[in-house]
Amino acid sequence: MRRALPPLRALLGAARPRPPAPRGMSGPRAERSGHSALSVLPSFGFLFDIDGVLVRGRTPIPAARTAFQKLLNPQGQFLVPVVFVTNAGNCLRQKKADQLSHLLGVPISQDQVMMSHSPLRMFKHYHEKCVLVSGQGPLLDIAQDLGFCQPITIDTLREKRPLLDAVDHDRRPNVLSPSAVELPKIEAVVLFGEPVRWETSLQLIIDVLLTSGYPGNPYEQENYPHIPVLACNMDLMWVAEAQSPRFGHGTFMVCLENIYKKITGKELKYEVLMGKPSRLTYQYAEHLIRAQALQRSWEQPIQTLYAVGDNVMTDVYGANLYNRFLQERGRRRRAGDPAPCAERQVGLGWQRELACAAAARCSSVLVCTGVYSPRAQPGPGRGHPVFHGHRDFGFEPALLQPDHVVPDVDAAVDLVFQLENFAPH
Amino acid sequence: MRRALPPLRALLGAARPRPPAPRGMSGPRAERSGHSALSVLPSFGFLFDIDGVLVRGRTPIPAARTAFQKLLNPQGQFLVPVVFVTNAGNCLRQKKADQLSHLLGVPISQDQVMMSHSPLRMFKHYHEKCVLVSGQGPLLDIAQDLGFCQPITIDTLREKRPLLDAVDHDRRPNVLSPSAVELPKIEAVVLFGEPVRWETSLQLIIDVLLTSGYPGNPYEQENYPHIPVLACNMDLMWVAEAQSPRFGHGTFMVCLENIYKKITGKELKYEVLMGKPSRLTYQYAEHLIRAQALQRSWEQPIQTLYAVGDNVMTDVYGANLYNRFLQERGRRRRAGDPAPCAERQVGLGWQRELACAAAARCSSVLVCTGVYSPRAQPGPGRGHPVFHGHRDFGFEPALLQPDHVVPDVDAAVDLVFQLENFAPH
Repeated sequence: MRRALPPLRALLGAARPRPPAPRGMSGPRAERSGHSALSVLPSFGFLFDIDGVLVRGRTPIPAARTAFQKLLNPQGQFLVPVVFVTNAGNCLRQKKADQLSHLLGVPISQDQVMMSHSPLRMFKHYHEKCVLVSGQGPLLDIAQDLGFCQPITIDTLREKRPLLDAVDHDRRPNVLSPSAVELPKIEAVVLFGEPVRWETSLQLIIDVLLTSGYPGNPYEQENYPHIPVLACNMDLMWVAEAQSPRFGHGTFMVCLENIYKKITGKELKYEVLMGKPSRLTYQYAEHLIRAQALQRSWEQPIQTLYAVGDNVMTDVYGANLYNRFLQERGRRRRAGDPAPCAERQVGLGWQRELACAAAARCSSVLVCTGVYSPRAQPGPGRGHPVFHGHRDFGFEPALLQPDHVVPDVDAAVDLVFQLENFAPH
Repeated sequence: MRRALPPLRALLGAARPRPPAPRGMSGPRAERSGHSALSVLPSFGFLFDIDGVLVRGRTPIPAARTAFQKLLNPQGQFLVPVVFVTNAGNCLRQKKADQLSHLLGVPISQDQVMMSHSPLRMFKHYHEKCVLVSGQGPLLDIAQDLGFCQPITIDTLREKRPLLDAVDHDRRPNVLSPSAVELPKIEAVVLFGEPVRWETSLQLIIDVLLTSGYPGNPYEQENYPHIPVLACNMDLMWVAEAQSPRFGHGTFMVCLENIYKKITGKELKYEVLMGKPSRLTYQYAEHLIRAQALQRSWEQPIQTLYAVGDNVMTDVYGANLYNRFLQERGRRRRAGDPAPCAERQVGLGWQRELACAAAARCSSVLVCTGVYSPRAQPGPGRGHPVFHGHRDFGFEPALLQPDHVVPDVDAAVDLVFQLENFAPH
């Protein structure tokens, strides 16, 4: 694979001196949030990626435990707001919180965990409708936890319409004229994460889209735009124990998009794309950060979000994209432009709620324990990096430039404490 | 689905009078092979498609039995050379011959059956090499029957490299550092037909291509052009019992091509594409037709091939493409152009062998019992048909025009007997 890598200005050696000094600072924004006096209350929060930062596959990364000891007070409470932002979508946030508590040796609440599907909680417009859900794991639990009242899984649809799934010779039905089973119209498709038996999910999703929600009916001549598709987690690949990255949900989406286009000649359209690097994800993460600060009665406003991740294409790109949004909004506010207020008045409920985001900036911190490796940077003659982001995201190489590069998550925490002059003890 | 349909000049009513009269003849070539006197020895042969012509899913089409009674003499021998040309690839030709014998009530030999993979028998260059085979059914039997000495299946590769297949949470290995198992270099990938668990096959094929045949190694920076990929059966969809066509191997190939392109930024290339509408398939089918004629000591040369199918995009397009090839070659021969001889001298063994094809023409006969329906023709304002052929085949609408349209295979046999003035009894 050619990893799409940024032209980093500074790379780090392997040595990690203690106590921490600012390291790996690169780019013009590195000094921006320095304070002149030591702070004891946080005006910043952390967004931690999980895979490649805290774990690799199922193996913990040693620096994670050290880092988290620094983030707690002697009573075991967090000293700063912390949200775990993962693109994973095939499990409940409570399960992820339990895994993290065990892994890091500190208590993590489910309210600190943001899965790629978490913003669906805000899409109340769809909650009453019958939606087809694709993915694996406890899909119905996830859907119901998010507020969906009538989710239907691919497996259930397959049982109700047994003639549709014809790829696997050994799973074709014995009865060729099964009796018709009534099904409500499917009004949207929700893609939580990569399913298993891709041929089955791809076929049934295509059937739903080409019959406007009545799979089993003949394909219609006119069915475009198709019923809404809401997708979580666009990661093309992710890093596990194998020596090369493995297929993620983004790879499944590449298949779905291209089959739809081949059959219909038209583009599959997403109603919404969630998960890093989408802005919605960072808006929702900031919403959770502010909720934590409110709960702890930290009255100092949260000015800076530090997004710590291992993936340039998702973590860095997404944080920088959100930072650009925050900067632009700040400029408009300072200029007295009423546009930010307009944001509150139009649009859906979630847009109104999230438009109240108040941070001044979002800073990207890249670690070297996952997808990104400073040694694997493309050299001369190795060709151009390939864009592994999603089709619908414009590729802006400038957004691949992290604000900071550090060896691991422990160094990231040290760096941020120093930048913020944060000395809680 | 928008079926890609030709602007047919003549369509048939549903009534099918007996005894047969020329029906459904359309286009300028319909009269071309008429004879002035009745023939008793054949100067023509049949290429019958199976799905949509003789069966639909597992349900026999009634006209098939009637048709085949007319093709046999009282001793149960065929009166004309007949080859069954199917794009199916996931079974042995002997099994298909047995199914057809049972279905049609006449004895069919495996030498009359051409699967999409049959021409691989001629690719002796690959037979000694270790090749990865993808598909379902008796893959090793198929590969070995074709002459491959070292086939390795996706399932076997998955066992030997358990870290690679990471999509299904429930099938991930418990051991995270499995001991290394030696594997020979994989020197080619053979795609027989649509597999099951597409995520597994797609991941392992991509791994093989991006490691130049050493899956489990890190992806290489420079591995293009990749190792050869030989693919059988490009059908995007096929008709079963469901009301809309189902995914075929071509849909799997759409996924593979687009994942490869997304990851590498480059095009997946096929060393060879087999199955209708590829010329290789028709060359090989003619080879089988001539072998039958030779075996029966029919000394009259086989001048015309009648390709009977239900799919405009594969059966009609392929037959017309082959006819164009035959016409062009005939013109060059009549002009004394030495090019046909050059074909024999250069190239691979199979090219030399098949270049001896001697038919004068290949005529396309479309039946209405499968994918094609005269009622589903696009009308004004219904938009352009979408190209459902393979990416690597140029789309020439002129080649979608069948020479003849008939209600079913029985009418096809009647029509051809009449066109050829064939009266064996």
